[in-house]
Amino acid sequence: MTAAGGPARLSRRGLLGGGAAAAGVAGAFAAGRLTAPETTPVAGPVASYPFHGERQAGIVTPAQDRLHFVALDVTTDDRDELVALLKAWTEAAARMTNGESAGPVGAVDGPGNVPPDDTGEALDLPPSGLTITFGFGQGLFVDADGKDRFGIADRRPEALEQLPRFSADVLDPARSDGDICIQACADDPQVAVHAIRNLVRIGFGTTAVRWSQLGFGRTSTTSTSQSTPRNLFGFKDGTANIKAEETAALDEHVWVGAEDDPRAGWLAGGSYLVTRRINMTIEVWDRQPLESQEQFVGRTKGSGAPLSGGEEFTEPDFAMSGSNGPIIPTDAHVRVVHPDANDGVRILRRGYNFVDGSNDVGGLDAGLFFIAYLRDPRTHFIPLQRAMSRNDALMEYLRFTGQALFAVPPGVAEGEYVGQALFA
Amino acid sequence: MTAAGGPARLSRRGLLGGGAAAAGVAGAFAAGRLTAPETTPVAGPVASYPFHGERQAGIVTPAQDRLHFVALDVTTDDRDELVALLKAWTEAAARMTNGESAGPVGAVDGPGNVPPDDTGEALDLPPSGLTITFGFGQGLFVDADGKDRFGIADRRPEALEQLPRFSADVLDPARSDGDICIQACADDPQVAVHAIRNLVRIGFGTTAVRWSQLGFGRTSTTSTSQSTPRNLFGFKDGTANIKAEETAALDEHVWVGAEDDPRAGWLAGGSYLVTRRINMTIEVWDRQPLESQEQFVGRTKGSGAPLSGGEEFTEPDFAMSGSNGPIIPTDAHVRVVHPDANDGVRILRRGYNFVDGSNDVGGLDAGLFFIAYLRDPRTHFIPLQRAMSRNDALMEYLRFTGQALFAVPPGVAEGEYVGQALFA
Repeated sequence: MTAAGGPARLSRRGLLGGGAAAAGVAGAFAAGRLTAPETTPVAGPVASYPFHGERQAGIVTPAQDRLHFVALDVTTDDRDELVALLKAWTEAAARMTNGESAGPVGAVDGPGNVPPDDTGEALDLPPSGLTITFGFGQGLFVDADGKDRFGIADRRPEALEQLPRFSADVLDPARSDGDICIQACADDPQVAVHAIRNLVRIGFGTTAVRWSQLGFGRTSTTSTSQSTPRNLFGFKDGTANIKAEETAALDEHVWVGAEDDPRAGWLAGGSYLVTRRINMTIEVWDRQPLESQEQFVGRTKGSGAPLSGGEEFTEPDFAMSGSNGPIIPTDAHVRVVHPDANDGVRILRRGYNFVDGSNDVGGLDAGLFFIAYLRDPRTHFIPLQRAMSRNDALMEYLRFTGQALFAVPPGVAEGEYVGQALFA
Repeated sequence: MTAAGGPARLSRRGLLGGGAAAAGVAGAFAAGRLTAPETTPVAGPVASYPFHGERQAGIVTPAQDRLHFVALDVTTDDRDELVALLKAWTEAAARMTNGESAGPVGAVDGPGNVPPDDTGEALDLPPSGLTITFGFGQGLFVDADGKDRFGIADRRPEALEQLPRFSADVLDPARSDGDICIQACADDPQVAVHAIRNLVRIGFGTTAVRWSQLGFGRTSTTSTSQSTPRNLFGFKDGTANIKAEETAALDEHVWVGAEDDPRAGWLAGGSYLVTRRINMTIEVWDRQPLESQEQFVGRTKGSGAPLSGGEEFTEPDFAMSGSNGPIIPTDAHVRVVHPDANDGVRILRRGYNFVDGSNDVGGLDAGLFFIAYLRDPRTHFIPLQRAMSRNDALMEYLRFTGQALFAVPPGVAEGEYVGQALFA
């Protein structure tokens, strides 16, 4: 091999460090990043977030632009194999979020006679704000046959149960549930895909992909430094989201408290993750008059201000009345899901727009991949979703085609592995 | 409606022009764009390419980062309806590539009692280098029943026929063919999706989506100003692509000549577009030793240099021999598809990486959505694909799951509509 081990074999790290070949794409990304309000570079010219920390990254991290989410089934019954995989994933995740290859050898720096320990498609790309977030599903604790495969059934969080069905649910089992989930967010989709692909590869023989979802555009802001993006209804989405800066609200609504669940102390400081694949009937939506759309949402389409007036971040005045009753209709989305109507409950949303080809009625298979982090699904998700199902004017334009719930362990300290307290 | 017609109702254009609400996302994008080598802004701070011109944009335009491609079936038999749609699409495409809404009223500026003429999800986004490229499939000329629905059967280009099946083809009819295609490329996926969605919407009742494909990462360079990206095999892809700067090669290999097909004079100055949805068996690929991967491709994985030496853009030396025969194996991809082995034929590739969820063997449904523009599929695609099918070492890792061929009319002059010469 002419180039084996030669100077052409730059590691991903090498390229980022200033290799000549990095001057094109990587340079442009780096420059772009510095001016973007969404990211807070930890060090150096390229945004990166450390994998280790008190909390897992990818929850309150300023929402990156692109998503690759995967749910896996564990195919082994061997606890040691599972723990070994969690250790391997932790190492790989820490490397990749730092802009390095998935394994210590890399895509092109090893001996030629063995498979590389990185697949290579992110070789020339910077970390791109990559975060990798792990969660554990109910099936990891008790499998479909009721079996405690890994000796952790007695540590299953009480709230980690099968979610109920809601109206408008047409859930596809092949797009729902899973023993383990991995959320990769990045500002470059190739970096997010590379991360998931390499973690899936490391799990080969121990886990299998159950479902996977790409999101092309974020719909939520998780930091006050971000401007509000739009969903495929054309409306700003996430205006009233909890922001990373609201630490008291995060403690109240997102992070699992130390006393929340005595049998699941390992989850303290973590969170619950709910995903819902929400198909939007966009062709029908697009035929509604602007005023109707705005009344369904309860906000103006342009600025995102509540119909009661003001600008985007003005609090809605639900008491304001016009000649035809409340200015913000009783079934407007903003009213139905508002904390005032839901015992003060708030959640942290982190959703993404998706288009997955075409549907069977000559339109696009498109919508919102809803992701929310919350302290307890029994208080923070199920009642909210029931209220939506019952009252929300938007429901006519939504079909729920996938659903999953995961317990998201707290952050990983240096030298530990993700979920270690669960298996200790 | 409190905000109807008020200052909250900024048009997309208004936002781009400096509306306060644009300071966040749009500002960051604009700043990023200026430093990116991939785009050549035509005017102002945001990259945009005009829809009108001698050629359709989106062919030799420096390949943008993201793709949304759609193939449509025409559901009417009425020629006037079809022509009216082509006119409406032309107007909308010219508006959207200019960063404007799909229709003249816009998403939020019209009267509240009618549906907006734009769906709104790109309201706050700059043009993002959007190009929209139209093509016509065989079915537009002669439908599945052999019927000449629109009186244009005698103008069908001779080369616009059903492509043959090749080995490793497992074509899904639901991902193949189509009467009309629209390729939207942009540096922001939301802008590409917005364009396709609004064109599909305009076609509602006249056309129906047959299939649709998102691509998250380009795999080709179409300009010498671009650095070469990587496909999901981890290799640089598109090194030897025809570049926009090679005008003589474009005339020889990409643009249909005036004398090429007497019965299809309307296509002179246009091109043919071949799409192939190529699933990569990435899990198997990832288990191959680095040297094997490089021998399959014929290039090093790091720099992309041919195995015969040099750097990425060095011409491969196919005659060079080592102790075990040719340094570049006889079945290496770079050798099999090289012009020297194919009567000098070159094509213009414009492919994108894709991940579309999971497959049925616990892996990712992932690969390359191959797009090529070429002068004649009979000389420039079929023989090349046959050579690949017969000899190419990569074939073991590829499965072809979709295929389509379209005739791409030349550019549209101001005041004309796309394909006008075909219907004149």
